[in-house]
Formats: sequence, structure tokens, C-alpha cells
Amino acid sequence: MTLEIPEVVINRLPVYARALATLAEHGETVVSSQALGEQLDVTPAQIRKDLSYFGRFGKQGRGYNVHGLLAKLREILGLDRQWRVCLVGVGRLGQAIAEYGGFEPQGFQIVAAFDSDPAVVGSTVGGAPVKHSDDLNAYLRSHPVDIGVVAVPARVAQQVVDQLVAAGVRSILNYAPIMPHVPKDVSIRHIDPVLAMQSMTFYIKEREASGK
Amino acid sequence: MTLEIPEVVINRLPVYARALATLAEHGETVVSSQALGEQLDVTPAQIRKDLSYFGRFGKQGRGYNVHGLLAKLREILGLDRQWRVCLVGVGRLGQAIAEYGGFEPQGFQIVAAFDSDPAVVGSTVGGAPVKHSDDLNAYLRSHPVDIGVVAVPARVAQQVVDQLVAAGVRSILNYAPIMPHVPKDVSIRHIDPVLAMQSMTFYIKEREASGK
Repeated sequence: MTLEIPEVVINRLPVYARALATLAEHGETVVSSQALGEQLDVTPAQIRKDLSYFGRFGKQGRGYNVHGLLAKLREILGLDRQWRVCLVGVGRLGQAIAEYGGFEPQGFQIVAAFDSDPAVVGSTVGGAPVKHSDDLNAYLRSHPVDIGVVAVPARVAQQVVDQLVAAGVRSILNYAPIMPHVPKDVSIRHIDPVLAMQSMTFYIKEREASGK
Repeated sequence: MTLEIPEVVINRLPVYARALATLAEHGETVVSSQALGEQLDVTPAQIRKDLSYFGRFGKQGRGYNVHGLLAKLREILGLDRQWRVCLVGVGRLGQAIAEYGGFEPQGFQIVAAFDSDPAVVGSTVGGAPVKHSDDLNAYLRSHPVDIGVVAVPARVAQQVVDQLVAAGVRSILNYAPIMPHVPKDVSIRHIDPVLAMQSMTFYIKEREASGK
């Protein structure tokens, strides 16, 4: 059944879970799809439709039970688990990623990093040992990870993604400014601030053209 | 007319432009929607539909003129222009953003940074002067920017976004792990690696459940 759930729906679930966690922290016990939608700039109908893929939540006119829905979303997404992450590329960007404090509290632990630069191989970054890229396959075969983070230059990103896939990694978070190809059974997400900026300049031009 | 173009279409245009630029660099002069679609994991029909919002490109069976379509997309998105960017938050993340080499070659120049920490105010980061956050409004009023980048902790992100909007900024790239509210005439994009990872763990669990 779940194979039919659109990826855009799956991508919104963590956003809902985070909003519900914040409501729970503030002591809220019930939230309407209207209130949740206003907070997230999503229509209430969209929220109801997204959640309907996973069963029936809330009662007409009574809103959702914050803790109940949050627990269900955490279960669906596996947010209560610990996930093993490896990082490929320990340049400036990779170091910032490894030292970013936001992953570990959410259950994502960087357990190993890889680079081909002898200057960093053998060091540690954000608590993880830096291994040589040549050892990636052997290391990941004996120490499997759930997610591979790619923070290498564009010209080698496809090659690194191929190596991760060959080593059994099925989820990839890509920071390189290209869109590497992956097999159908591999998930990939792209973090690309330049593309995000470029999609906003369209609107800046629009506003200029309309004189606002 | 352009007001009716869905945001998801606008968000795909920079991806098309980047792929066309790479093709042009490799000396390609013509590309079919099939070939472009395979490269980007988008259906040819989607590409044709997206581009149809902006006029007629390519001829049936002959493909798109790479340089012609690229020039048109660059014009639509304003990619040939220089855009002024300010950065708010010069902690570890903000410093990594300021020192990231990928913005300037694409026309995005960080012209000023803001922080409330006296230890960094008065320094420079990635070539930009770091001003005190208290001076944000006055500074941006006399030195307007096109895009504001928010790299502050979650608890102050809404306040910073409100300050940027009040200072006339209409496009915001948000790295804080919350979704700040903005008025209807302001564009906002979120860079959130944790949400991206959380949307992939669903699929890891699915694969486990199916025994793959």
C-alpha cells in the first residue's frame, strides 16, 4: 500500500512531526488542521489528505490529538531510532556538516568520514574518524550505514554516489551542486542553496516588473 | 500571466538551466526533452509542460536549441544579474555559508553580515563586514539587498525574519530549523538537512519491512 504514497507527501511528514513536537513542548494537546495549516502555510485539506494515507486521525470538528498523531508520525518515519550516517568529503563544507550540532539530537550519528586528502585522513571530524576514500567500500561493507552524505566537488560527486551505492548505501543526502543519478531503489535528496536562491530571483524580477 | 505559474515549476527552472549550461560546456547544441528528462529524473512531458508557460521552445521531433533555451531561462530567472545578499547570524553555520565559494560565481554576493555577538561584530566574514544586529534596519534601508540569508538559532529565527521583512527584504533563504512566517509578497526557501534525512528514513523502514 505505502508504495503508492507520493514522495511529496512523505517529504511533508517530517514538517508536520516537527510542528506537532513544538506544540507538545508548549503543552498543547489538541490541534485543528486549520491551526496546523496556518502555522505551516499548507491548506487544512492538504494536511487531512496527506494523513489519510496512513489511517484515520482526529475526529470531525475536534482536531487532532497532538501526542497521538506525533507518536504515529514518529513511528511512520522512524524518528525514534538511531541512524548511522557516513560523510564523504571533509573539505570546508564537509567539516561544517560534521560539526553541525543538529543531526545527533535527531538520531542521525555520523560514524565515519572519508576523504582522499592525506592531510585529513587519520584525523577526526565532529567526533568521527576520517578514513581514506579508497577504503570506503571495505569499511562500509563491515560497518554498514543508513545514510551517506556527499560533500565533494561536483566533478567527483557522481563517482562518489556510485561508490556509496556499490557499498550498499540506499539513502543519500547530496550537497554537491549536481544531480547525481541513482538506481530506482535508492533515495536521494539535494541540499542546494544556489538553486533555492535562483528560484527566488524570478519573483524579485516579477516584483520589479510590476513596479512593487 | 506569470502570476499563475506554479511555484514548483519556477523551482525546477534553475535545475533545467544548470543542466543546459553543462550541456553547452560539453559542446552540445541540441537536446531532446527525453534526454534532458533522463538526466534530471523528470518526465519529458513535465519538461515540455513547464516550459510551455514561457512560450514555445523547440520543434516537434527536433529537440531544444541548448543555447537558445539556456539564454531564455537565464533571462526569466535573472541569472545574468548580480544579486546583493545579506547574512544574519555569523556562528559556525553562518561562517560556513559566508565562506562557501559557490554563491559568488552564480551572481550572489554577500555584501554584509549581522550578528549580536560583540566578538564578531567589526570583523569580516567571507569578505563581508559583520555589523551589529541592532543596525540591521538602518543599514539595509541605506544599502538594500535582494536576498537575506538567515543562519541564526531556531528561537530567534522568526524575529530575524520579521526584521528583514521590515527592512524591505523580499526574498529569504532560511537555514534555521523552523519555518518562519512571511507576508504573501515575500518568498522564503528553507535549507534543512534534518528534514531531508527524516524524509528518507521512511523509505529505509519500508525496505526493511519488505525484506530488501
